[in-house]
Amino acid sequence: MNADLNSRPIGIFDSGIGGLTAVCELRKILPCEDIIYLGDTARVPYGTRSRETVLKYTVQDFEFLKRQNVKFSIAACGTASSTMVGESRLFGESCTGVIEPAVAAAVEKTENQRIGVIATSASIRSGWYERLIRAALPSASVFSKACPMFVPLVENGYTARDCAPTVEIAKEYLLPLKREGIDVLILGCTHYPLLSEIIADILGSGVALISSGAEAARFAKNALAEKGLLRQGREGKVKFFCTDSPELFRESAAHFLDIGGIEVERCSVE
Amino acid sequence: MNADLNSRPIGIFDSGIGGLTAVCELRKILPCEDIIYLGDTARVPYGTRSRETVLKYTVQDFEFLKRQNVKFSIAACGTASSTMVGESRLFGESCTGVIEPAVAAAVEKTENQRIGVIATSASIRSGWYERLIRAALPSASVFSKACPMFVPLVENGYTARDCAPTVEIAKEYLLPLKREGIDVLILGCTHYPLLSEIIADILGSGVALISSGAEAARFAKNALAEKGLLRQGREGKVKFFCTDSPELFRESAAHFLDIGGIEVERCSVE
Repeated sequence: MNADLNSRPIGIFDSGIGGLTAVCELRKILPCEDIIYLGDTARVPYGTRSRETVLKYTVQDFEFLKRQNVKFSIAACGTASSTMVGESRLFGESCTGVIEPAVAAAVEKTENQRIGVIATSASIRSGWYERLIRAALPSASVFSKACPMFVPLVENGYTARDCAPTVEIAKEYLLPLKREGIDVLILGCTHYPLLSEIIADILGSGVALISSGAEAARFAKNALAEKGLLRQGREGKVKFFCTDSPELFRESAAHFLDIGGIEVERCSVE
Repeated sequence: MNADLNSRPIGIFDSGIGGLTAVCELRKILPCEDIIYLGDTARVPYGTRSRETVLKYTVQDFEFLKRQNVKFSIAACGTASSTMVGESRLFGESCTGVIEPAVAAAVEKTENQRIGVIATSASIRSGWYERLIRAALPSASVFSKACPMFVPLVENGYTARDCAPTVEIAKEYLLPLKREGIDVLILGCTHYPLLSEIIADILGSGVALISSGAEAARFAKNALAEKGLLRQGREGKVKFFCTDSPELFRESAAHFLDIGGIEVERCSVE
């Protein structure tokens, strides 16, 4: 009955390549789904821009995915997600950001109700992580830290476990959170899972790391399952779009994740 | 005779706040000039984008400055400048980028004809530094290195002489140039003068550092002097425009240089 709808792809966008971590998670849990990925590389990064600028870009990115006939869309970008909260009239139901799914997972996971959040400056400035955690768990203490160096470090490949500059900068960001005794840390930016070894080394095994991209992928799976819209059968394909040079996208993506000789098409979202 | 023309401001733009180092240089050598500064903060950084995207932005930024009735314009952005070389029909005579002035200074300064260049990935990829140095000094050996981490490090305040992550990353970039025996290094991005202590510590006193923003300021002074267009008299004013939030611009600018409570106006250049 839903065959036509079921066979439509799932859309994912990010300001750049960070959202590819969410693509990997989605392919793990939904291997039969086709995926359309949009990297808004002509306007990356979102994390340092004002709320109104990011909101405009987010609306345009979702519109682009809708034109690709997707059945569900994910903003796999913490900053874009932070502008979506409380704006459901703009975005409708068939989509999610990464914030609510990550908050739900953190609230379920914490035992001592001390929750840490790391994200871009824009996401932290929005205050949404803190407000949504407190709304779900009023007794929670939330400790937030903007980590503006993590995106450039990841995009330039400084991700090895023993990479001294990254370890040093990560300690500066994370030791204050460790001292607060958090037992859960939300990685509120989809670039951050590539630093999870370094982060885990600093925080120790007593702190659970929540990947916001992985939680958003799980949320999408549940939403589609509820509506009977999951696809079965053959392995899904991924189609990549970006708004600046496809060559540069391929280069950074390869640097970033092992996705081999992918085909990338340039598009305009404005 | 030229009174009306003389009293017009000088325009400077950069993708973000790096060009403020050129503003400081210009104010040192031309204290009576009014300056219009444009930071294209809604589209920063340029250094990671494709040539055609940066060329489009560069044309738009100059058009904006022309609408402000400037008598001369400076692209105080190495990446924007790299798209201007060989495109004089697009840009006309009353403007300069930072590349030619920096190349002229380096060629004059070198004694052993071994010249180093550091800049953003896009500037280095353009190959223009190398080609222009060789055109001016065919016997020169040129050693180029893209330093993509320097802009985020500077913009996040990691500029202190003993800042371990910056020193570590700078060594990785600069030691290969030092081993080549360069005696001059072009700082091909206007952010880099804020790292000149760290850079000088690594390269030693035998390597002269050429600031591309300072050389462009000198070039502008000479060009205006030749045409009798310099302004005399009272101290000049600086007016700041940016394409994203003025608050964020003020914050980063304060972080970046001591320019106090400046007034910043938001504008559109598209």
